[in-house]
Amino acid sequence: MRLVVIGGVAAGTKAASRARRVDPNLEITLYQEEPEISISECGLPYFISDVVEGRANLVARTPEDFAEKDVEVLTRHRVESVDSENKRLIVKDLSTGKEFEDSYDRLLISTGARAVLPPIEGASLDGVFALRFLSDADAIKRYVREHSPGKAAVVGGGYIGLELAENLRELGLEVAVVEAEGRVANAYDSEVSEKVAEYLKEKGVRVFTCDKVEAMVGDEEGRVRAVRFDGEELEAEMVIVAVGIEPAVELAKEAGAKIGATGAIRVDKYLKTNLPDIWAAGDCVETTNLLTGEPAWVPLGDTANQMGRVAGSNVASGEDVLEFPGVLGTGVFKVFDLTVAKTGLSEEDAEGAGLGVVTAAVDSVDKAGYFPGSEPVFIKLIANAATGRLIGAEIVGGRADKYVDICATAIWGRLSYPDLVNLDLAYAPPFGPVLSPVIAAASVLANKFERETEGVRTVE
Amino acid sequence: MRLVVIGGVAAGTKAASRARRVDPNLEITLYQEEPEISISECGLPYFISDVVEGRANLVARTPEDFAEKDVEVLTRHRVESVDSENKRLIVKDLSTGKEFEDSYDRLLISTGARAVLPPIEGASLDGVFALRFLSDADAIKRYVREHSPGKAAVVGGGYIGLELAENLRELGLEVAVVEAEGRVANAYDSEVSEKVAEYLKEKGVRVFTCDKVEAMVGDEEGRVRAVRFDGEELEAEMVIVAVGIEPAVELAKEAGAKIGATGAIRVDKYLKTNLPDIWAAGDCVETTNLLTGEPAWVPLGDTANQMGRVAGSNVASGEDVLEFPGVLGTGVFKVFDLTVAKTGLSEEDAEGAGLGVVTAAVDSVDKAGYFPGSEPVFIKLIANAATGRLIGAEIVGGRADKYVDICATAIWGRLSYPDLVNLDLAYAPPFGPVLSPVIAAASVLANKFERETEGVRTVE
Repeated sequence: MRLVVIGGVAAGTKAASRARRVDPNLEITLYQEEPEISISECGLPYFISDVVEGRANLVARTPEDFAEKDVEVLTRHRVESVDSENKRLIVKDLSTGKEFEDSYDRLLISTGARAVLPPIEGASLDGVFALRFLSDADAIKRYVREHSPGKAAVVGGGYIGLELAENLRELGLEVAVVEAEGRVANAYDSEVSEKVAEYLKEKGVRVFTCDKVEAMVGDEEGRVRAVRFDGEELEAEMVIVAVGIEPAVELAKEAGAKIGATGAIRVDKYLKTNLPDIWAAGDCVETTNLLTGEPAWVPLGDTANQMGRVAGSNVASGEDVLEFPGVLGTGVFKVFDLTVAKTGLSEEDAEGAGLGVVTAAVDSVDKAGYFPGSEPVFIKLIANAATGRLIGAEIVGGRADKYVDICATAIWGRLSYPDLVNLDLAYAPPFGPVLSPVIAAASVLANKFERETEGVRTVE
Repeated sequence: MRLVVIGGVAAGTKAASRARRVDPNLEITLYQEEPEISISECGLPYFISDVVEGRANLVARTPEDFAEKDVEVLTRHRVESVDSENKRLIVKDLSTGKEFEDSYDRLLISTGARAVLPPIEGASLDGVFALRFLSDADAIKRYVREHSPGKAAVVGGGYIGLELAENLRELGLEVAVVEAEGRVANAYDSEVSEKVAEYLKEKGVRVFTCDKVEAMVGDEEGRVRAVRFDGEELEAEMVIVAVGIEPAVELAKEAGAKIGATGAIRVDKYLKTNLPDIWAAGDCVETTNLLTGEPAWVPLGDTANQMGRVAGSNVASGEDVLEFPGVLGTGVFKVFDLTVAKTGLSEEDAEGAGLGVVTAAVDSVDKAGYFPGSEPVFIKLIANAATGRLIGAEIVGGRADKYVDICATAIWGRLSYPDLVNLDLAYAPPFGPVLSPVIAAASVLANKFERETEGVRTVE
């Protein structure tokens, strides 16, 4: 039985490992277009500033690691087409330029995602970059070393854009963030975006919001010197475009795989595509938002890894062994010393989905007030007005990464506000105020429910 | 309508505030024996070493704060007896020594807990202390200042004993911990205790386990000079006895309140005692362990605070408005730079309760491996073999406080291993490896379930 895996980032490598574990006799080949497999893409912004040192550290597993497991890994090999009827592939060896045919019994597509490069005039100027692969990070580092730019612009104020802003500041550059979607961190409700924008200013990062980024402007030598938006030019000797990523679905689509409403490959809960014996996992597939039941495309390393486990088991046995249930939309990012996190639906998301909500926001601290080193934390909880259940949380500051995981687990467990106020969390002065900020916010939520809603009478 | 609250630490003060909020017209008086109310007892070990500076910082609320809310707070007043039939009290003003009568319509008993002082020979020597009140901490600090002891012994290796060991080292003392219950941190399974003991040694704290602490040995001036156990004398110029605390139930018991199997006051889920119009909350009552359904006495500040909210609402209205469902037994402590936490049942607890378990333990890290400052973390998950549900977790190192709260929330939400492996937690390199240690441990758990148990076929 021969398994071919196309794409060797998180989902593909995890699935290959898992498949080997499940079936020691499976013949497994993994094709990867890039020179490395299993790289930690999320570490790339920190690699640029050398906060994370050494390329090798970003590579979680190498082809040699897989050779030990009797998994054949061929890097710099691009699968050009899939014939799902005859279970055959055309593969190109990028180092020789030669094409060859291969076959499979079962196929896993984990082609990942790639940085979106919007068709902006001047996008191909020297000094304009996107960041998705280790090779991009290498190119950015080389450019900084060779040209010592003083001013950089980051186009896009999502979490990758903000992480880039931090790491470019770390390198000593002046940094401006240009955001065309109204506000930075726009997956969050506006009060959170405002807090983040305010903080960026404190850290010396200029934030510009605009209707449209019109062009990158170059000098005579073809090197970027400015970004033009809303008719103004902002000086920039280097520009990183971080307006988002998109699923790499062309190969799957041409093979006949159904593409979902999000633009990513549609799979069932066992991560099977509509094509026989073809599964797909990771950043190239869509899954389900567990709160709305709608398709969701949430390309994140942890989710890809979890999908890899599920896909690896199913593809190894050819059976529906494990399910991948879906996601909540949990995420966290750090910008300088500020941690920002969310899970579930924002208030805007919920309203967009037609859900009535009750929200509560509190300012708390992440240690006992009298304990040294305590930091402020803002937490907003969003509950379904009809059921009292937690459906979202947004957190800024302090140990937001901790509180968001509590909230994500609470949502997964379908907890409502009476559960949250009595939740038995761990307390000691070095770790929080006597009531966790989550419980403090839940208490405000409970008080509001008592006042604001009728017909909800669970515990209180 | 007159409400009297007896005892002004966490539960009593919280309940008084809550009651005032619920009913602005209630007449409320709170009697407190100690000179302060609302002190953060958990901060006391850190106050001894001046890590937490200033007595005032440990006092969350003062009588003056309550005066503003029209709640009468009388400190240094001890309630001597309760006549539940006639709803009358005898109160002694400790500053004048005079007794007087008072009456109530509704009564809340929140008399808390006190340090156990076992009847060890020499316990009343100079230099032998317990730690429960701010006045104890004051006395310890004064003794250290006046006598500059070089060697201290802490009797008891529970979390307060270990926090004391750290803070005495912080003051420059040589410290030995003497534990008569077999091992330090004995609420945990033995592999955790061993890790803690090993770490204490690294930090220069000597750990002695013994059958029995026989005596404190004094010099001619009546000052402690050694602790005797198992026939040996351990030199100690100062001894703090931290063998545990016990609920202060005498007043309630004499009034006719039922005492539970744990030795604490028995209350229903509305925190009502068996006596008419008398509620009780905080460290003096027992509640339910939600995993075993058995009575549990878990005297912790956060739980007391949560009970205070429930009791305050119920006592203010005289109705069963809010429920306090029970506890999981979640706790965390820090000793030097090591964080240790648990929730739910230990493997030993579970076996003692006759539950079959499947456990998984992994060593992980609390940041991405390539990210600077990553620390090791050990996590052990305990699942019910019959249902696959998580019933306990023990964690040592790294951000144990975070992982334990995820596990506590998961237990509260009745999640089982297939949920845990797919749980949508927040990932970014500064905050953890791509899969949270909780998920990594859950994956091992899942693998074991596939092998070890039959009849459990949920998702995998």
